[in-house]
Amino acid sequence: MSAGHDERLARVALSRLAEPGDAKFRGLIAEIGATQVHEFLASERDLTGVRTEIAGRLDTLDPAGDLDRAARMGIRYLIPGDDEWPTQIDGLEGCVDTRRSGGPPLGLWVKGPLRLDEIDDALAIVGSRSATTYGTDVAGEIAAHVAETGTCIVSGAAFGIDQAAHRGALAVGGRTVAVLAGGVDKAYPDAHAALLRHIGQHGAVVSEMPPGSAPMRHRFLLRNRLIAGLSKGTLVVEAAVRSGALSTSTWTTKLNRSVLAVPGPVTMAQSEGAHQLIRSGAATLVTKGAEVLELIKPFGEHLVTEPRGPERARDRLDPRVARVLEAVPVATPVGLESIARTAGLSSDEVDEALQLLGTEGMVVRQHNGWVLGEAARV
Amino acid sequence: MSAGHDERLARVALSRLAEPGDAKFRGLIAEIGATQVHEFLASERDLTGVRTEIAGRLDTLDPAGDLDRAARMGIRYLIPGDDEWPTQIDGLEGCVDTRRSGGPPLGLWVKGPLRLDEIDDALAIVGSRSATTYGTDVAGEIAAHVAETGTCIVSGAAFGIDQAAHRGALAVGGRTVAVLAGGVDKAYPDAHAALLRHIGQHGAVVSEMPPGSAPMRHRFLLRNRLIAGLSKGTLVVEAAVRSGALSTSTWTTKLNRSVLAVPGPVTMAQSEGAHQLIRSGAATLVTKGAEVLELIKPFGEHLVTEPRGPERARDRLDPRVARVLEAVPVATPVGLESIARTAGLSSDEVDEALQLLGTEGMVVRQHNGWVLGEAARV
Repeated sequence: MSAGHDERLARVALSRLAEPGDAKFRGLIAEIGATQVHEFLASERDLTGVRTEIAGRLDTLDPAGDLDRAARMGIRYLIPGDDEWPTQIDGLEGCVDTRRSGGPPLGLWVKGPLRLDEIDDALAIVGSRSATTYGTDVAGEIAAHVAETGTCIVSGAAFGIDQAAHRGALAVGGRTVAVLAGGVDKAYPDAHAALLRHIGQHGAVVSEMPPGSAPMRHRFLLRNRLIAGLSKGTLVVEAAVRSGALSTSTWTTKLNRSVLAVPGPVTMAQSEGAHQLIRSGAATLVTKGAEVLELIKPFGEHLVTEPRGPERARDRLDPRVARVLEAVPVATPVGLESIARTAGLSSDEVDEALQLLGTEGMVVRQHNGWVLGEAARV
Repeated sequence: MSAGHDERLARVALSRLAEPGDAKFRGLIAEIGATQVHEFLASERDLTGVRTEIAGRLDTLDPAGDLDRAARMGIRYLIPGDDEWPTQIDGLEGCVDTRRSGGPPLGLWVKGPLRLDEIDDALAIVGSRSATTYGTDVAGEIAAHVAETGTCIVSGAAFGIDQAAHRGALAVGGRTVAVLAGGVDKAYPDAHAALLRHIGQHGAVVSEMPPGSAPMRHRFLLRNRLIAGLSKGTLVVEAAVRSGALSTSTWTTKLNRSVLAVPGPVTMAQSEGAHQLIRSGAATLVTKGAEVLELIKPFGEHLVTEPRGPERARDRLDPRVARVLEAVPVATPVGLESIARTAGLSSDEVDEALQLLGTEGMVVRQHNGWVLGEAARV
């Protein structure tokens, strides 16, 4: 099934007029629909607050031509109602920033073989562009672990954490989506042209801006809502205070979805944002892929066993023998009688237990008594 | 004011018979008082569950001599009711481990000039004996920061985090208390003899075990309840899974006091325990001394201002100028008309704003239009 042709053309045209998430357009479209808004604008009626100069610009547009040109570049345009529409992004309805920009996109320009209706348990991984090796290592490793389970890794193709996340997913033949602030035909940053080409061949490159659009600052901030909106949760790995990664986590919180964050050394500014998110309760601390899966996969499918440390010989001891062991000092040797008193057991019982513990290296006989052996050290 | 002499002698004697926090003794003392328990035992009556052989051992004890010998070594014995008794430790009443050992100590043997009734806002700092340099650096720095405000740092004088915490406090002339599992006259570990001597001269070395007692494994675990009980909160810096530091944090939770934990690299086993505490909600993540003070000092005395990142030139812009700035692309130059359309402002307004932004280095004119300048990069 796919949505109507008029609706699609109207949304293409409007996406050339409106900035991402523009509050006025969003309100109008929600009220009367994209086709009607387009028709009204084309007929030059003055709609409250929308400047009529826009109507003039509308005449110069060629949405059908836009779709043709995009198709020749291997780019498709998805709108709500299409089979491939990623319905989880509709969760953005009602989510706005301080300027009341936001909400779901008019449509999504997509390049790549990955169908967006097949990434409903996607994980966003975002973080600092000036990441440390620690950060990119951890991001890449978690991305690979999570992608191996079939979950798609969504990020923004930026330097640092973003690229490490995409590469981690690609390295295990996993799914990944890059969401751009400009057109999907424009590599940004330039240095990631090869990475974006690769994602366009094996995953998907996505934008709400039409091909040819330039990335601009406020488009990055609104792009972050799409990263959050496509994903079931957002993992923050290294984010300075006031970074784009924190903007993505804010959108995720508005969506009422999980924000996860990886801690790092408190001595590195790169981890400050992640620590703040955990400290304030906005994010759950995670340290590895398994913990991430536990939070984003359907309930009970991935449960993490809390690490309990290696089982030690001491854990297998008979309770009476364990009591004897506990009565043996760490440093200064003591005699059997003293151990028996401390343990509250008979000398015979203690003697027997000490023999057993000795063969396991857990106690050692010295000339003036018994002390703990290497095998019993905490 | 000080508690009665009979009571003190009885507690000295009982502390030579009972292991720390022993459930049977604790129950009896709570019921009929230490003096009565001592009398009953001395008269060889068989009290439920307490072996009468103890009565025989009682005859060999010399509590008055113990107090004399201790006094000659500069060691005093505090019991509940003494002026110097640290009443916060009474919070241990009802706190027991899985063997029902625990509760407040019979008394405290103390060596050093620091009065224990003057450390009511103490902070425990505990962690791995095999700490990393990162861990000891952070522990030392936080200990110094907190000790500078007059708060006492309590720890266990072990290798690694413990010693870094004591030294951090001593380095700024702050207060510190070392709680030992054996007698306060016995340096454990040996290598910390000088550190313990120093603490004994400037702070206090404390134990519930009489002088001469050897440290034993289960005494370490019960010693940890005293570290928690003397403190208003416990800070964990690097703790492996199943470490003594986690035992101290468990006692702190039983006391209904704050557990704080410092995160670290997820790639280091040393931070696993701290991460687990934060992840499970048992501990609050902290990254520096100021955040620790906020949690342990009286309400409102120390408030942390969340870091917001440096103020940037952009923050001071007039809203219209900021709107123009947001319409200028990061990479590909665009003309003034295009910027005006994106910003929804007149060409004149945009021209004026671009001039202003240019002088601040926030936009740069190139031959074919305008792009963001260095000063405006995110």
